[in-house]
Amino acid sequence: MSKDLDRTLIEDSYRLLQQRFCDALEALDGESWFGSDRWDRPGGGGGLTRVMSGVGHIEKAAVSFSAVSGPTPSGVSERLAIEAGAFYATGVSVIVHPKNPHAPTLHANLRHFRTDNGPSWFGGGADLTPWYLYEDDARHFHRMLEAVCRAHDVSDYPAWKKGCDEYFYLPHRGEARGVGGVFFDNLTDRSAEVLAFQTDLGDRLLAAYLHILRRRVGMHYGPRERAWQEMRRGRYAEFNLVWDRGTRFGLDTSGRIESVLASLPPTVQWVYDYEPEPDSPEAALLAIVRSTPRDWV
Amino acid sequence: MSKDLDRTLIEDSYRLLQQRFCDALEALDGESWFGSDRWDRPGGGGGLTRVMSGVGHIEKAAVSFSAVSGPTPSGVSERLAIEAGAFYATGVSVIVHPKNPHAPTLHANLRHFRTDNGPSWFGGGADLTPWYLYEDDARHFHRMLEAVCRAHDVSDYPAWKKGCDEYFYLPHRGEARGVGGVFFDNLTDRSAEVLAFQTDLGDRLLAAYLHILRRRVGMHYGPRERAWQEMRRGRYAEFNLVWDRGTRFGLDTSGRIESVLASLPPTVQWVYDYEPEPDSPEAALLAIVRSTPRDWV
Repeated sequence: MSKDLDRTLIEDSYRLLQQRFCDALEALDGESWFGSDRWDRPGGGGGLTRVMSGVGHIEKAAVSFSAVSGPTPSGVSERLAIEAGAFYATGVSVIVHPKNPHAPTLHANLRHFRTDNGPSWFGGGADLTPWYLYEDDARHFHRMLEAVCRAHDVSDYPAWKKGCDEYFYLPHRGEARGVGGVFFDNLTDRSAEVLAFQTDLGDRLLAAYLHILRRRVGMHYGPRERAWQEMRRGRYAEFNLVWDRGTRFGLDTSGRIESVLASLPPTVQWVYDYEPEPDSPEAALLAIVRSTPRDWV
Repeated sequence: MSKDLDRTLIEDSYRLLQQRFCDALEALDGESWFGSDRWDRPGGGGGLTRVMSGVGHIEKAAVSFSAVSGPTPSGVSERLAIEAGAFYATGVSVIVHPKNPHAPTLHANLRHFRTDNGPSWFGGGADLTPWYLYEDDARHFHRMLEAVCRAHDVSDYPAWKKGCDEYFYLPHRGEARGVGGVFFDNLTDRSAEVLAFQTDLGDRLLAAYLHILRRRVGMHYGPRERAWQEMRRGRYAEFNLVWDRGTRFGLDTSGRIESVLASLPPTVQWVYDYEPEPDSPEAALLAIVRSTPRDWV
């Protein structure tokens, strides 16, 4: 039973990951720092939201920790089909919007949820969203994920890769959000091993993403690439606001809306019925997100 | 029974309104024209989406007509708690995003819905969303709405003004979308009179909005005002994507996603935890949308 795992152990792991992400992203940005907003949830618990609005390589990044508890909100118990009672949820989430359109956006999330009268599980995921396709980046990201999963027998890369492709999908656009990653949920057994896997995943994810960023943030771009990035960020906002269960859970439980919506991109454009020119780099990205998900390993 | 009213009569009224809005907005913009995209819905019916991406005073405007029919989509019948069967829906919608942050955004919608085995009704509404508060504009808009309603005994300004304040509200922000207007639905009786009211409303709305635009589009603004406008447009996007039933109906029935989402603002910013300076014009707008709706008549 994952209930046996001490809450402090889980929270400390997530908090340390938050710290390592913030330190590394500040170092890469070179010009900006993360703010720290500590908040209390009226119903119980709270969090630490850390956001950087950078003038350097990182245009906006949000690295958030939360540990909330109390009577289960009705929206949550209905969605999970559980009886009311008390709940506890803790998690760390990362979203990075680099300035350079050649650098992909990263999203990652590690979480633990339990109730006093039933379910208790771990979940999480990580996915990469490029605006221009660099196959090397997608391969590097997925090979890292596959390797982490191979090192921990509580994990299942093929199933979780598929789960990610299914989850980060915009049905109203017929498009994947990006090149995917892993998505896992409802891991109810072997809590200690799952937490060790999550911690390892967090660290290697950070290393792999920094590797990708270093290759991309110095590349040349102009107004055309920025406009395309902002239009594709529109899709990102659509996913988060229309489809994302994490956002919906946040709207139901947090009370601190700025933390829930810190993931939204810094600048966005919606241009009516825009289609890139055939054989352009923009069309190449669209072809990838509109086709059957690829095996990147 | 509104079923007795000929479909052609309703559609012609809506189509003519679409034409008048497009002509007037092109004249005001002075530099751009509306495109025309005719589309067919796979399940039956179709529409004409007209969008202007202006280089003049209108940054983006979408004036759309649709008349769709066929077997009732399951999403729709579930939400309306009706049995399946066939449905028919026609409507005209208007959304105008002026370039100048001092000029308010307008949204309006007139619609008719019927099924072969039950409900049949008219609905609609109009609301004004300023980024800077000009009380004159809000009063002009509401006095026009009150006068139109007074001229048609099928309408009820006080109830519909209240309905608008309740509908165009962002619970996750604790904010109204703007200064409101009217919102009405489920008008099942006296179809001919309701259609006459809708047509009158459409024309006077256009006149009142043009009057407001002419006062605002020449005003001076700079980067500060544009940034504020784009941040507030973020709230507009949040409302449409998270809460708007019309958008959800469109996602369920249209199949032409670019028409459904043509209402989204052209440029948007999400800045973490932004609060304007006390006693600024930006703070004055926030105070209005965060307080009890005002009586503007």
